[in-house]
Amino acid sequence: MACVKRIVLDVLKPHQPNGLEFSLAIADKSPSARVKLTVATVDEKTETVVIEVEGSNLDYQAIHDVIAGLGASIHSIDEVEVESTAEPEAAG
Amino acid sequence: MACVKRIVLDVLKPHQPNGLEFSLAIADKSPSARVKLTVATVDEKTETVVIEVEGSNLDYQAIHDVIAGLGASIHSIDEVEVESTAEPEAAG
Amino acid sequence: MACVKRIVLDVLKPHQPNGLEFSLAIADKSPSARVKLTVATVDEKTETVVIEVEGSNLDYQAIHDVIAGLGASIHSIDEVEVESTAEPEAAG
Amino acid sequence: MACVKRIVLDVLKPHQPNGLEFSLAIADKSPSARVKLTVATVDEKTETVVIEVEGSNLDYQAIHDVIAGLGASIHSIDEVEVESTAEPEAAG
Amino acid sequence: MACVKRIVLDVLKPHQPNGLEFSLAIADKSPSARVKLTVATVDEKTETVVIEVEGSNLDYQAIHDVIAGLGASIHSIDEVEVESTAEPEAAG
Amino acid sequence: MACVKRIVLDVLKPHQPNGLEFSLAIADKSPSARVKLTVATVDEKTETVVIEVEGSNLDYQAIHDVIAGLGASIHSIDEVEVESTAEPEAAG
Amino acid sequence: MACVKRIVLDVLKPHQPNGLEFSLAIADKSPSARVKLTVATVDEKTETVVIEVEGSNLDYQAIHDVIAGLGASIHSIDEVEVESTAEPEAAG
Repeated sequence: MACVKRIVLDVLKPHQPNGLEFSLAIADKSPSARVKLTVATVDEKTETVVIEVEGSNLDYQAIHDVIAGLGASIHSIDEVEVESTAEPEAAG
Repeated sequence: MACVKRIVLDVLKPHQPNGLEFSLAIADKSPSARVKLTVATVDEKTETVVIEVEGSNLDYQAIHDVIAGLGASIHSIDEVEVESTAEPEAAG
Repeated sequence: MACVKRIVLDVLKPHQPNGLEFSLAIADKSPSARVKLTVATVDEKTETVVIEVEGSNLDYQAIHDVIAGLGASIHSIDEVEVESTAEPEAAG
Repeated sequence: MACVKRIVLDVLKPHQPNGLEFSLAIADKSPSARVKLTVATVDEKTETVVIEVEGSNLDYQAIHDVIAGLGASIHSIDEVEVESTAEPEAAG
Repeated sequence: MACVKRIVLDVLKPHQPNGLEFSLAIADKSPSARVKLTVATVDEKTETVVIEVEGSNLDYQAIHDVIAGLGASIHSIDEVEVESTAEPEAAG
Repeated sequence: MACVKRIVLDVLKPHQPNGLEFSLAIADKSPSARVKLTVATVDEKTETVVIEVEGSNLDYQAIHDVIAGLGASIHSIDEVEVESTAEPEAAG
Repeated sequence: MACVKRIVLDVLKPHQPNGLEFSLAIADKSPSARVKLTVATVDEKTETVVIEVEGSNLDYQAIHDVIAGLGASIHSIDEVEVESTAEPEAAG
């Protein structure tokens, strides 16, 4: 089995909740993780932010649900890093 | 629960108090923190500065109040880094 | 004998499965490997991604088969790193 | 209480005293500090220099007075880094 | 005597064998070496690749012969690093 | 008292003595120092070089005298780094 | 006395001997040195290469003689690094 170690998301969000509250909400659902939010562009009612989440075993679905629950949407998954353990899965 | 480790603010301030006094005022309300202020643009009566605060558990509200109390305003939160502890919060 | 330590692939893929699922599928067939996927360009029905796989002894055929099995195609092998052991092979 | 760890000044100075004498004069009034002076632009009678002072607890007023005493003027404080200790000040 | 530690070659090759097979073939003839191949430009029937070989004592003739044996040609030797031992050779 | 740790000079010199002889002459008068000379621009009879001298306690006057003694002139002192010891000088 | 630790030369050479043979010849006359040759520009009959030699005590005359003996010429000495020992030479 492979674990997700890092994911970079391009997210369109309303101005509220602000980037700090947004980051804290994601971190609250991601144990032992680091969340970094950077504002990319600001429009009248929305802003595009890049959210990088790092951890030992991230739960993408939980991250997705927090983002959707705050009225924002994931534009794209820009980067992903995963690591596999020593044993391969049985051939599919 | 998640802690705020780093925050980068875009701030519009009058020339006085100067950047040094401004930084010291923020640091005085942020225990065990490091404050870095960089001047971005200078206008006749105001200047735009980038303020980066790093610490183990920053109190954004305290930082916000110091900045407002000195006659300046936060234009935007440009970057945020937060870290969560090992245990997730109960689902909301 | 020489081992493949790192390979960087330029891959054209449909939007689904997304980059996360794509990376996990490659990692599941590559024991003790690290997979990093970065989106390069996005078109209406497809996207070009750069996939970097690092490990101690990568199996290129397995990686190729996973990518093909997900409806994507390898455009080019952009970078390769291999290491040889101390003894040379008998001259061919 | 917070300490000033680093300060970057934009200074307009006459050609004499030269950058070396200028730096030594600042250092003489700043115990355990490192002073770095870089020439930015040179005009007929003056030059603009960037002066970076690093130390464990810098005294800005002393630095200011040395600079003024040598016939130069601080154009702006370009960067400041301060650190606070563990205990916050009583609320102001 | 001096040893070759690193060599960077500009090579024109047919598309087949691909970069992976090409790198493995060079590594098989270079004990304890690391081979890195990067694609520079792709044409209809050929591609130009940069091949960097690092090792403790590379055999350039062997590398040259592998490349020629695969239908490719060395355009130029772009970089070379050699190291000499403590004793100089007798004057030539 | 403060010590000069590093100085970067912009120097106009004749082609002879060459950069190597020039550097050695400066080093011979600067105990325990490292001298790095880089050619910036070359004209018909002169060249502009950047000379960086690093040491624990540089003697600028000695460096200046060597440069002048070789028929060259210091255009400007581009960078200076000095360090002060723990005790401040008595106020001037 | 000061030692030459590093020297960067701009050299015009014929295509033969090639960069590898050229580097080995320099290294053979420079005990305990590292020679790095990089091709800068290629013309019909000649090429300009940058040769960087690093060692604990380089002999420039020997390097110069090897280069001249191979039909090439040193255009310029681009960089020099020398180090002096703790004792200054007696004043000249």
